[in-house]
Amino acid sequence: MAPIVVGLIGFGTVGTGVVKILQENRQTLRSRIGAELMLKWIADLDVERDRGVEVDPSVLTTDAERVLEDPEVQIVVELIGGERPAKDYILKAIRAGKHVVTANKALLATHGNEIFKAASDHGVEICFEASVGGGIPIIRALKEGLAANRILALTGIVNGTSNYILTEMTEKGEDFQAVLRRAQREGYAEADPTLDVEGIDAAHKLSILLSLAYGVRIRYSEIYVEGISSIEPLDIAFARELGYKIKLLAISKQRGSELEARVHPVMIPEDSPLANVNGVFNALHIEGDAVGETLFYGMGAGMMPTASAVVGDILELSRNLLRGVAQRVPPLARPWEELSDLRIMPMEEIVTNYYLRLMAVDRPGVLSAISGVLGRNDISIFSVVQKGRNRLGEGVPVVLMTHEAQEAAVQRAIQEIDELSVTVGKTQLIRVEDPRIKDENL
Amino acid sequence: MAPIVVGLIGFGTVGTGVVKILQENRQTLRSRIGAELMLKWIADLDVERDRGVEVDPSVLTTDAERVLEDPEVQIVVELIGGERPAKDYILKAIRAGKHVVTANKALLATHGNEIFKAASDHGVEICFEASVGGGIPIIRALKEGLAANRILALTGIVNGTSNYILTEMTEKGEDFQAVLRRAQREGYAEADPTLDVEGIDAAHKLSILLSLAYGVRIRYSEIYVEGISSIEPLDIAFARELGYKIKLLAISKQRGSELEARVHPVMIPEDSPLANVNGVFNALHIEGDAVGETLFYGMGAGMMPTASAVVGDILELSRNLLRGVAQRVPPLARPWEELSDLRIMPMEEIVTNYYLRLMAVDRPGVLSAISGVLGRNDISIFSVVQKGRNRLGEGVPVVLMTHEAQEAAVQRAIQEIDELSVTVGKTQLIRVEDPRIKDENL
Repeated sequence: MAPIVVGLIGFGTVGTGVVKILQENRQTLRSRIGAELMLKWIADLDVERDRGVEVDPSVLTTDAERVLEDPEVQIVVELIGGERPAKDYILKAIRAGKHVVTANKALLATHGNEIFKAASDHGVEICFEASVGGGIPIIRALKEGLAANRILALTGIVNGTSNYILTEMTEKGEDFQAVLRRAQREGYAEADPTLDVEGIDAAHKLSILLSLAYGVRIRYSEIYVEGISSIEPLDIAFARELGYKIKLLAISKQRGSELEARVHPVMIPEDSPLANVNGVFNALHIEGDAVGETLFYGMGAGMMPTASAVVGDILELSRNLLRGVAQRVPPLARPWEELSDLRIMPMEEIVTNYYLRLMAVDRPGVLSAISGVLGRNDISIFSVVQKGRNRLGEGVPVVLMTHEAQEAAVQRAIQEIDELSVTVGKTQLIRVEDPRIKDENL
Repeated sequence: MAPIVVGLIGFGTVGTGVVKILQENRQTLRSRIGAELMLKWIADLDVERDRGVEVDPSVLTTDAERVLEDPEVQIVVELIGGERPAKDYILKAIRAGKHVVTANKALLATHGNEIFKAASDHGVEICFEASVGGGIPIIRALKEGLAANRILALTGIVNGTSNYILTEMTEKGEDFQAVLRRAQREGYAEADPTLDVEGIDAAHKLSILLSLAYGVRIRYSEIYVEGISSIEPLDIAFARELGYKIKLLAISKQRGSELEARVHPVMIPEDSPLANVNGVFNALHIEGDAVGETLFYGMGAGMMPTASAVVGDILELSRNLLRGVAQRVPPLARPWEELSDLRIMPMEEIVTNYYLRLMAVDRPGVLSAISGVLGRNDISIFSVVQKGRNRLGEGVPVVLMTHEAQEAAVQRAIQEIDELSVTVGKTQLIRVEDPRIKDENL
């Protein structure tokens, strides 16, 4: 049987992992699909560096066009990341009738609709299992395994760097900056950590999950995003005392005919399944109307886990090529024309529970002033924790746990609270949720 | 577009769930595949009983042959369970060129090779996501999502009934019989619980997972099976004291060119992911050479979770029918002729750690006699726990935790120990393992 011809663009960490799997598991892969995978090209600007894998030099090229213009190449694997030239390469491959595998979540989040539409128009496939959750086959689960379900809620820890930082802050009591610096030294965080710690990467991934779960086009710009850089050791300590862990969650839910889609830190009960997903691990908690509660857990990043997903996609495309079929399952799980335009609720409309932590001057009437503001904004208090005496006029922390309240009201209230003469600095707000709870409004 | 025509044989609990999903999620399903699913027949011996779903009476039949002989039917869903007549129906459907969906793990474990070979010969598909792990899409994960990996180890809690009983025994300190009787009253256990509590159902499922993970034919009869009926509250209490939980695990591992495949109770560290899978939940822990550690968690049984998997399979087959493709992924994940005959290690050859609990008469020299037997059998002791004084000559429990030892030696040793005059009754043996630990021999 003729081999399946693959061209790889991007010979970085994940690209190297892909080459390793193709070499080391060659026999396993061949026995699975009944044909050989032939890696004909590896394009990268740097073809000199030793990556610890042996590659026939004639396979290497600095010119990605060689891959895209080779009529023998059936599958193009894009692993350079970023917007340009990745987007041009992918569109060129699609127009040349080549199937595409990519791990580029930032690109799919920002230009996915154009890319998916092009793939649909040209009858080729674009696979992106590696774009969310590393090696966890979550894209497939949403497109196929759980396809019988209406997805009620999907909640994920999908950014390993921020989860690593929160885990270290929780276990060692250190502050954000200290852990971030160590994570950077140890290679768990980038020199510019913005994408990871400000929730942007998680929002990129959520935009993809949202489309697969709810049949909408990519709607990245409508997702609310808030990162973890303002989380303080004090909040982590209060969370522990109250029986919670703080996690950066990507959340999507169907609410009647509307969707929630948001990324922010959340206090979740310490015994809920996501609370024990630590370090660089990722997990997705999915609740379907038929299947009930499910959880998918694994390494969300790294050379080999991500390469596992990329090669899984190469195998899927190979199986389709060997049977002469394409777009058996469309990239966003539904035919392009079936995608809908459900409204995504703006953050102000979200209703949830809140942890509010403020620093109050230690004198009578503080609590009365604060609860007055909350009451006027229709926010009822579930519990109050006040601790210690102030030293050097810094204020004492006061923690208020609210009943369900609307985000807009809470934002108004903390603005008023921050203007009170009895408070110091800005109120910390962390939403409190249990991904397991079925809401009756669903 | 013409609808996909489905015939259902078996209108029991899961069958009713399938009908519910097809009705309630009709719009979601249509938008996913771009075509309508038409349930043309429901065959069951009892067509009178009210199942809480409305069905057009003309769809109901007591004659399964009506379904099998209808040339319009493209997909036959077998949900009657058991060996006969399920096997005949499935083979007849295959020979008529119809694709098959089944949840019948007992049948696949005992007659799977004949059925899969027939499907392969006739170029039709047989899907069985519902046969293992209820709604958890684990079959797909092994066939596709993790296909790039060599699977190093697969460890699962795949029987909800036995996991429910062990969970209750652990949380309430009750004995096996008491919990079993309650589980039977509450509908979590069958009137004859043998299949569940003696590990047979878990072994049926393991035989399927083993084939998908390691590319072997179905080898059910070679799987070692031991159930949970001999687990005593005393053992659960010792497990807790030692930092373990007792779970009925289905285990498979590759050891060089051989496989391990066994079902038995295991003491696993209380902080390992499977230790916190409680009640009727199922979970599979899979370690791949590229992906590393993954976990899949969800409801392993029940009307709607199982129906979720069945309808997922119907959608998969529909997508293939709409593209005119079959056997894109063969039933056992590899082409029939690629399946190998790796040796499955007999239980005596397994090497692991052991918990041995015996009842000793309370007099000097007991420990020396016991450790003498272990020493002569090359078993070294890691720790000893001895507690309490005997009352009424019943003996006092002595617990020995061993270093790694070979099963054959341990079985020889406990036979000798049971013959000693200083012991009373039979020695309890529970294997002690950590599914997470990568063995260097792998």
